[in-house]
Amino acid sequence: MMKEINIGLLGLGTVGTGVAKILIENRELISSRVGVVLNLKTVAVKDMNKNRDIRIDHRDMTDDAFKVVNDPDIDIIVEMIGGETIARDLILEAIENGKQVVTANKALLANQGTHLMKAAVEKRVDLAFEASIGGCMPIVKTIRESLVGNHIKAMTGILNGTCNYILSKITDDGSTFETALAEAQKKGYAETNPTLDVEGTDTAHKLAILTALAYGMEINLKDIYTEGISKITPMDIEYARQFGYRIKLLAISKNHEDSVEARVHPTMIPFNNLLSNVNGCLNSITVSADAAGDMLHYGYGAGMMPTASAVISDLADLARNLASESSGRIPLLAYQVDKIKKIRVMPIEDIVTHYYIRFAAQDHPGVLSKISGALGNYGISIKSVHQKGRKANGSVPIVMLSHTAREANMLKALKEITDLNSVTDKPCLIRIEDENYEE
Amino acid sequence: MMKEINIGLLGLGTVGTGVAKILIENRELISSRVGVVLNLKTVAVKDMNKNRDIRIDHRDMTDDAFKVVNDPDIDIIVEMIGGETIARDLILEAIENGKQVVTANKALLANQGTHLMKAAVEKRVDLAFEASIGGCMPIVKTIRESLVGNHIKAMTGILNGTCNYILSKITDDGSTFETALAEAQKKGYAETNPTLDVEGTDTAHKLAILTALAYGMEINLKDIYTEGISKITPMDIEYARQFGYRIKLLAISKNHEDSVEARVHPTMIPFNNLLSNVNGCLNSITVSADAAGDMLHYGYGAGMMPTASAVISDLADLARNLASESSGRIPLLAYQVDKIKKIRVMPIEDIVTHYYIRFAAQDHPGVLSKISGALGNYGISIKSVHQKGRKANGSVPIVMLSHTAREANMLKALKEITDLNSVTDKPCLIRIEDENYEE
Repeated sequence: MMKEINIGLLGLGTVGTGVAKILIENRELISSRVGVVLNLKTVAVKDMNKNRDIRIDHRDMTDDAFKVVNDPDIDIIVEMIGGETIARDLILEAIENGKQVVTANKALLANQGTHLMKAAVEKRVDLAFEASIGGCMPIVKTIRESLVGNHIKAMTGILNGTCNYILSKITDDGSTFETALAEAQKKGYAETNPTLDVEGTDTAHKLAILTALAYGMEINLKDIYTEGISKITPMDIEYARQFGYRIKLLAISKNHEDSVEARVHPTMIPFNNLLSNVNGCLNSITVSADAAGDMLHYGYGAGMMPTASAVISDLADLARNLASESSGRIPLLAYQVDKIKKIRVMPIEDIVTHYYIRFAAQDHPGVLSKISGALGNYGISIKSVHQKGRKANGSVPIVMLSHTAREANMLKALKEITDLNSVTDKPCLIRIEDENYEE
Repeated sequence: MMKEINIGLLGLGTVGTGVAKILIENRELISSRVGVVLNLKTVAVKDMNKNRDIRIDHRDMTDDAFKVVNDPDIDIIVEMIGGETIARDLILEAIENGKQVVTANKALLANQGTHLMKAAVEKRVDLAFEASIGGCMPIVKTIRESLVGNHIKAMTGILNGTCNYILSKITDDGSTFETALAEAQKKGYAETNPTLDVEGTDTAHKLAILTALAYGMEINLKDIYTEGISKITPMDIEYARQFGYRIKLLAISKNHEDSVEARVHPTMIPFNNLLSNVNGCLNSITVSADAAGDMLHYGYGAGMMPTASAVISDLADLARNLASESSGRIPLLAYQVDKIKKIRVMPIEDIVTHYYIRFAAQDHPGVLSKISGALGNYGISIKSVHQKGRKANGSVPIVMLSHTAREANMLKALKEITDLNSVTDKPCLIRIEDENYEE
């Protein structure tokens, strides 16, 4: 008889249902690979009588999730409830009871991860979270295991399918942000309240976890500069195209050893960057490491089955650890607890990069001279200027690409420019990531 | 004091040197992640007095590799010698001595893997080989661990950097195969004897390992249809471009449950297929799985440091298993030994796909009718015909794209066409993989 590992699943939302489906439908496949049976023992749901697209015996269901985390027969808890209150309490109680835990709850991990990890380390249980970032892309495992011999230098990712769908839509159809968002909501790619996605917060949650894992450091979510995509216009996307760029919401993280950059914002990247060809609701991430060089993962970053696939991979890992009595075999945050460092996260004002800036200005002589004068005052030089003939609201758009500049200087210059009488609207600033940018 | 795991490294060629470098230079990083010290105890080399780009104490070197695999203080052997005789004997002796083994030797694994795996299973030691396929891409780990809950449906990979470099060169510069190969040799991307690479054998080795892992089956290398790139001309690459295709040497594997396809050949793929944009000596692989959907890995598939990075990831896994006494935690071939199946590998004659065919024919009336008649005799219908005006050797090239056809029928038709008086040269056949091919 093959050993059985009992699983308690909390929540039958989209991903929870996917997890149950795989555990039921691929049960034999999984046991033929793992060598133990992953047995879905109990499922906790809010409403036991809801009609569901999955057949689970009522006797295996409960509406009391705490009963599941306190069931001595259950070995692993899969938390698929979401949110940061009940989910946290359930995970902590499961850990307290010595159970292994799998979650995809990036908000919880990003905000209260330190507390959860500490509890797990103390009780010597595993807390696994591959599904919290990038759906089926095995990015947690890759950083934690495959790149174990590498100093990780940088990571750049498209980690939110909703934003990527919306930006692809604006790029391909010239839709406005509002139209593209409505379309995403209609297709079920965006929540009714899309703020967490479109304002970049969800991406920041994921970047926080990745940055901690990759560099072996503690990180506070509030230290990650986060800017969403709601202000991106078809006009900027069209200008970007003319310069050979696409606009993507990127999670960017760079390791400078004494400090790290960790920021989320719309970014222009050249057409020949593989990430610029990642469209629709797909995700992708590049990692640069000292030995491996640049590598890239690509796949479905969300959705029922791809995310569930990642949960199952965590479940199999934990089941293997239980079967071989090796829980805690890999440290939760990739580094041994006593090796985790405090590294300064660089304030956005300190970053140095290239910029796309667009002004709306009255079309009369001297405007350009005033604008470039203000930039010059802060040591910012301009690579190219494009004054487009088109009038919008009685003013013309002036578009500039800068040479490398420190963000603090750019912000001061923009303030000065905004105060000019002839500048009629707030300037638009988009950062550029382009390794081959000609200075 | 942190536990030390002693490593014996056999061979200081390119990858062996990379492994030694990482173990020495990133020693502290690795121990801060793995929780044990990976100590490079002994290095076996052919010539101890050779000048090397790495500082290893003479006392830690030997020219007797068998001494290393018999050293009771050594826990893990890293075989970086290559070839299928001494390397095999050393690995078997290491296993016999109960040591864990890491290798990147795909030829040995593809040809004698079953024997080695059996020995390892019997002695309950791990035999790890992430570095044998795709350099730094964690494809073995992804198939074995991240996709553990998935039925894998298909894999398509660019797995040989030399071939990809040569094909990219022909595509970009219009070079002939011979010129591109010479360039690859000059740059160190191709061996002096490039046969194993350019004839597709190296790719077939890798595909054999991947197919076994993904579908849980035994596979014989000789069952993998293998065709290299030496016959690819700039002309065919140019025609491909006109049809919206690039030519890549692909490893293709498809799981039909009762049989599998496993084949290596030059293939036309559309521009919008991500693989078509993988250029130079980079590698990439897509995996289609029932839950995860389509995913892709991309990275350096060869070279000193990227391959060494994969070796280190195996070393860390084995060291973790040793430290937690859980060797054999993951079955070597992804499936429990008693679950490995025998599945028929489909002969190339049975595959059904789209074809690009090019004939050289005398430019007189009726030729086209005879050619399409021969194709029609075997039930093959033509999607489009292009008779290019250009005369080459007194004949004109006729290019056709077929609708789906069974290869056996295509071969019979080609035989009939080759026998036509008006057809002046052997036809060129290139298979097409295009999901959106219009029938």
